[in-house]
Amino acid sequence: MAITVVGSVAFDTVETPAGRKERCLAGAATYFSLAASFFTDVRIIAVVGEDFGPAEQAVFDAHRIDTAGIQHAEGKTFFWQGSYLENLNEAKTLRTDLNVFAGFEPKIPDAYRDSDFLFLANIDPVLQRRVREATPNAKLVAGDTMNYWIKDHKPALLEVLKGLDILLINDTEARMLAGNSNLVQAARAVMEMGPRMLVVKHGEYGATLFHKAIPDAQESRTFKTPAFPLEQVTDPTGAGDSFAGGFFGYLASQRDLTPGVFRRAMFYGSVMGSFTVERFGTERLQQLTREEIDHRFQLFRELTHLD
Amino acid sequence: MAITVVGSVAFDTVETPAGRKERCLAGAATYFSLAASFFTDVRIIAVVGEDFGPAEQAVFDAHRIDTAGIQHAEGKTFFWQGSYLENLNEAKTLRTDLNVFAGFEPKIPDAYRDSDFLFLANIDPVLQRRVREATPNAKLVAGDTMNYWIKDHKPALLEVLKGLDILLINDTEARMLAGNSNLVQAARAVMEMGPRMLVVKHGEYGATLFHKAIPDAQESRTFKTPAFPLEQVTDPTGAGDSFAGGFFGYLASQRDLTPGVFRRAMFYGSVMGSFTVERFGTERLQQLTREEIDHRFQLFRELTHLD
Repeated sequence: MAITVVGSVAFDTVETPAGRKERCLAGAATYFSLAASFFTDVRIIAVVGEDFGPAEQAVFDAHRIDTAGIQHAEGKTFFWQGSYLENLNEAKTLRTDLNVFAGFEPKIPDAYRDSDFLFLANIDPVLQRRVREATPNAKLVAGDTMNYWIKDHKPALLEVLKGLDILLINDTEARMLAGNSNLVQAARAVMEMGPRMLVVKHGEYGATLFHKAIPDAQESRTFKTPAFPLEQVTDPTGAGDSFAGGFFGYLASQRDLTPGVFRRAMFYGSVMGSFTVERFGTERLQQLTREEIDHRFQLFRELTHLD
Repeated sequence: MAITVVGSVAFDTVETPAGRKERCLAGAATYFSLAASFFTDVRIIAVVGEDFGPAEQAVFDAHRIDTAGIQHAEGKTFFWQGSYLENLNEAKTLRTDLNVFAGFEPKIPDAYRDSDFLFLANIDPVLQRRVREATPNAKLVAGDTMNYWIKDHKPALLEVLKGLDILLINDTEARMLAGNSNLVQAARAVMEMGPRMLVVKHGEYGATLFHKAIPDAQESRTFKTPAFPLEQVTDPTGAGDSFAGGFFGYLASQRDLTPGVFRRAMFYGSVMGSFTVERFGTERLQQLTREEIDHRFQLFRELTHLD
């Protein structure tokens, strides 16, 4: 089934211990779309500026991503510059130019309205909520957010959470949102805010899926996927968005959302994140094949399974 | 087969967000011995003072741990006081009284000499090496160390590493020892120092087993176990030593050390660590049953396996 995703398309300039790259095609919705496109049809809602040209469009086209919902505005595309020189696990933001993103008003093309899956990538919760309310027929809704919105826009974010089936955030964000340093307790508190499932991303340590208690089934309330042990991380940007794309894309590709499907979705999420960080920006996702994805999925199995 | 372990027996006074406990029976060799005792025969080499009485002896006796190698010296047993109030993941040392441990000269009882498995818990590498050299017939030798020895006693530590089959350390220690922040590269560098296997412990994120490359078998060079998602961590002290006890104890209980046995040993290590932190000191290990261990092992399987 098709996924509609709303979020940012951006150009990133990034420096990491592996080098420096100018103006990579990036942004949460770009990473998400590319990762999810290996599993299902993806429709994107975003805004770009005049510097978004045929080369960028071709990347989406090559992955059969529907870009009818990308608005072209006067001015420049959202630009972010960051450095991982001090800490490969946390970007230091050097510059943020919102550009056309400052006036972003998501518009949902009619052709998107039958999307059964909706993903609200990390943007202003006011916009997330607007898109959520405009797609009442979505059968499964997931979303992301970040520390900035948790800290300074919590009331708006709490409204968004009420409309989510699944929230995907990282450790620090989960603890901050719940105000609780124990992750199991924090997860339960977050799920009381709305989502019936929570995916907590641990960076190089993988991710954990929590879901609400089912009576007499305590054993299956969590599931863990590792991250792939990589000899070189070129650029960590977009790992979380790619995880979300692999996770949600795989779910959307399946007929029935059984517990086993959610487990495999966690693995596919981690697989997609592991590819993204191998090169700058979305380079690796642009060149990836489904065969590579399935091969790495098997490596994840060997990495974690007893037999 | 029997394990000989050399290391510290101590009394710990610990304060954590869950409370405060005075003079818990603790020390690396105590945690290790208790954890390993659920799987195989354990023989301990350590030193205690006059404050180690019948109550403490009874704990070892109840787990059929051979204490012929525990020397009783004049003075007090090694005492450590620490706080986890600021950070549950890292102890702040408030007091260390080496006491009788300051003059510790490990002596290996003749009855221990047929131990096929040797574990060198975290003590001065000079002593670790001496014990290693005095047990040339050990078939599998593993050990632990800490940042202090890596930083200030590296030449002595490097000599120990040459005699180890398996080193068990945490993330920070692995990176420090290798001088490399990428864990996969750091693991390879550490294995070039001697050990053919390395277990890196990630605290609440579990642990990774690395082993040297086998040609055409890249897929199986690492194995990951998660940590158990716990709603309350009462006292993190001893989690790593208990992991080592479960890991090495299970290995010693098996006839053939196949790759599958090492995988299950990782799970048992993580299981034992997860029990230890549920109560203060060695309280939980003292009351544990093999049935509880095997039940939690199954939960680990459900937590990680796709099917």
